[in-house]
Amino acid sequence: MERVLARDVKQHAGQQVMVQGWLHKKRLIGGINFIVLRDRSGLIQIVADKDDQVEKLRGLQVGTVLTVEGQVKEEPRAPGGAELHDPQITIEVPVTDEPPIEIDKPLSHKPENLDTLFDNRHLGLRSPQEQKVFKIRAALLRQIRRFLYENEFVEINTPKLLAGATEGGAEVFKTDYFGKEATLAQSPQLYKQMMVGAFERVFEIAPAFRAEPSATTRHMSEVYMLDIEMGFINGLDDVMEMVQDLTYNAVTEVYKDHADDLKDLKAPELVLKEQFPRYTVAEVHKLYSEANDTDTTNEKDLIPDEEKWICEHAKKEQGCEAVFVTNFPKEAMKFYHKLADDGTVLWADLLFRGLEIATCPVRENRHEVLVEQMKAAGLDPQSPGYKYFLEAMRFGLPMHGGCGYGIDRLVEKTIGLSNVKEATLFPRDINRLSP
Amino acid sequence: MERVLARDVKQHAGQQVMVQGWLHKKRLIGGINFIVLRDRSGLIQIVADKDDQVEKLRGLQVGTVLTVEGQVKEEPRAPGGAELHDPQITIEVPVTDEPPIEIDKPLSHKPENLDTLFDNRHLGLRSPQEQKVFKIRAALLRQIRRFLYENEFVEINTPKLLAGATEGGAEVFKTDYFGKEATLAQSPQLYKQMMVGAFERVFEIAPAFRAEPSATTRHMSEVYMLDIEMGFINGLDDVMEMVQDLTYNAVTEVYKDHADDLKDLKAPELVLKEQFPRYTVAEVHKLYSEANDTDTTNEKDLIPDEEKWICEHAKKEQGCEAVFVTNFPKEAMKFYHKLADDGTVLWADLLFRGLEIATCPVRENRHEVLVEQMKAAGLDPQSPGYKYFLEAMRFGLPMHGGCGYGIDRLVEKTIGLSNVKEATLFPRDINRLSP
Repeated sequence: MERVLARDVKQHAGQQVMVQGWLHKKRLIGGINFIVLRDRSGLIQIVADKDDQVEKLRGLQVGTVLTVEGQVKEEPRAPGGAELHDPQITIEVPVTDEPPIEIDKPLSHKPENLDTLFDNRHLGLRSPQEQKVFKIRAALLRQIRRFLYENEFVEINTPKLLAGATEGGAEVFKTDYFGKEATLAQSPQLYKQMMVGAFERVFEIAPAFRAEPSATTRHMSEVYMLDIEMGFINGLDDVMEMVQDLTYNAVTEVYKDHADDLKDLKAPELVLKEQFPRYTVAEVHKLYSEANDTDTTNEKDLIPDEEKWICEHAKKEQGCEAVFVTNFPKEAMKFYHKLADDGTVLWADLLFRGLEIATCPVRENRHEVLVEQMKAAGLDPQSPGYKYFLEAMRFGLPMHGGCGYGIDRLVEKTIGLSNVKEATLFPRDINRLSP
Repeated sequence: MERVLARDVKQHAGQQVMVQGWLHKKRLIGGINFIVLRDRSGLIQIVADKDDQVEKLRGLQVGTVLTVEGQVKEEPRAPGGAELHDPQITIEVPVTDEPPIEIDKPLSHKPENLDTLFDNRHLGLRSPQEQKVFKIRAALLRQIRRFLYENEFVEINTPKLLAGATEGGAEVFKTDYFGKEATLAQSPQLYKQMMVGAFERVFEIAPAFRAEPSATTRHMSEVYMLDIEMGFINGLDDVMEMVQDLTYNAVTEVYKDHADDLKDLKAPELVLKEQFPRYTVAEVHKLYSEANDTDTTNEKDLIPDEEKWICEHAKKEQGCEAVFVTNFPKEAMKFYHKLADDGTVLWADLLFRGLEIATCPVRENRHEVLVEQMKAAGLDPQSPGYKYFLEAMRFGLPMHGGCGYGIDRLVEKTIGLSNVKEATLFPRDINRLSP
């Protein structure tokens, strides 16, 4: 007999079907045993009134793998609107030990319980509630890819083991590479820029490694990044529009397709417009300082509280909880950024629900200017690690820009979680390297 | 004026258009200057007969970034069937140095020239011919994902920094992790198996790291792997059918969609059937030994020449150059494989055009048998690295199996290249860590 998934059982009312899954719950109500079986599609209730069948489950725990044949009866009060009667139960894999966590109710995501959550991730994900987070994550990735395919971006796979050159910034992990030293890529920055010279439009979705010596709600030592780069842009607007369209499409589609899951996860209502409001860094400082009776106008970057506040502000005033912040001061730039005529950096940050999701700058594509900027940043343009990157410029790259886009952060904020690690299957930080 | 891509110029016959791209070639024929411009879509020829326009290009090299406005004229002999006349040329980014390689003809892929090819990869990919390899790679990945989405596989992202547990086999890279030691994941093996307990069907496409101390045509120290795992299978057949359908679909679709590119790359004609022929290891030894007047019947695994021969044999005799080889002897097994009743391993290798592309075993899902197999393999089941993996079994996993599928190898063989590194943007091996 062919297996039927829990979600499809109702379509077989009156028929005999076979289901397979995990024992999820056992209950005795009024002398009748109710068993709930879990499979990848959901839950199905089984009514076991025959003693010999119930007897098979004696001493067996949640997680026991079962095959059950039975008669389908519609039952509006049961999950999925149907249940199986008169079951014939086969024990496929018995579980006799009591699992360390209970997965038949939502697991606690309180900050003080996160360590328990992550220590038991390999079992906790058996909770249908937990799975929803990662089904939404997969759906976001799928929508993002769809958008990029449609817009003629070529997927590239760049190396994660590097000879040492990095784009600066975060600390790097080092590894012994056959007697030499290699570093783990913090991002595909230099590679994706070089590939503009071939494909014009490229993207990569891959892990990136950052030896962040701190444990915060926004950082991990292994992150999942969407890196995009596009050539022949006319300026920052082209980059912002691409990132805006990608984000709008992915998030609204997922809110449509996964409405029930998002409701179960208590995700906030989505307040998004096709055009995200734009503010300069100076405007955010001014608005925030006025509203909060403080003075942040001397800050170079936004402070975390400003990121939260400006998204709330835009949601209230503009009906959109995603915003772009632009005109970052020169002091905040990286050596490969391009400066605007007014001395600020051609760079926009995408903030969504209070968190920076993506950094979207235009790159300096003039070889001689880039060399000067490297020197000003204290970097040696003669260093072997920059040889290929600088050659790509010297032999002609058009104006280009793109983004480093945090997938974990997008998942976190789409669902309304409060720690980026909750959006990650097996998070890594200074204190955590397992499971 | 809006930019028009080279491939679309012909549609604007008689009109004024603007194109942007790289100077790809300059030729003077019969007193008239022909310029070829490259963009992401292809090449377009520009006829420059006015001295002032030609003068702008004096001293400028291939790679110079140009904007050109001109009149479109149909011209069957030109690439794309049209050319631009009476051009107005703007130099966007001048290139004055002569590039180290010529990209207007196919680059040499002869074994003795591969080092030059890889040393100049960042520039060599500007050759339209080279780009085709990686457009086909991206297309294969896209088709594979489509198949997996349609079959309800959930994309997972598992960590690449591990506490030390590995599935055994290849050497591992080690990194300092905040004063502790971490290893780089050789594969997501244990993680994908654990995730069967949640999602039943999962996949990941990600880099894997192998400290292979050798430089061969089939190995790299950083590879791109498709890892799939599916639960509630009835046996090895279910895994083989899934891998067969995925492969058949991806390769035939790409041969359809990229017929011209594959022809330009001199890819062999595709000889594939929906059902791949199946041979046991013993059968391959026997057939090969008889045909080649030798004796391999005492070999545990297939020797590389047998892998080549059996694919040729199946192509000739069965009309299919992809085959499965099954019934590997117990001596070749890994601790997490499942044994069949006859004492061979429930494991199939997918070979395509002479190379092992994927390994597709069923896993041992009985906790107590797995523990015994670990001990027999000299591994310590008490080791912290196996704690979570063994817990996943102890708390119930159904029969499951999947594959480790080499994306680089699939690309190599789909195109008919002869070294896996040619299918990789920036290959890594014992001798190569850059560009």
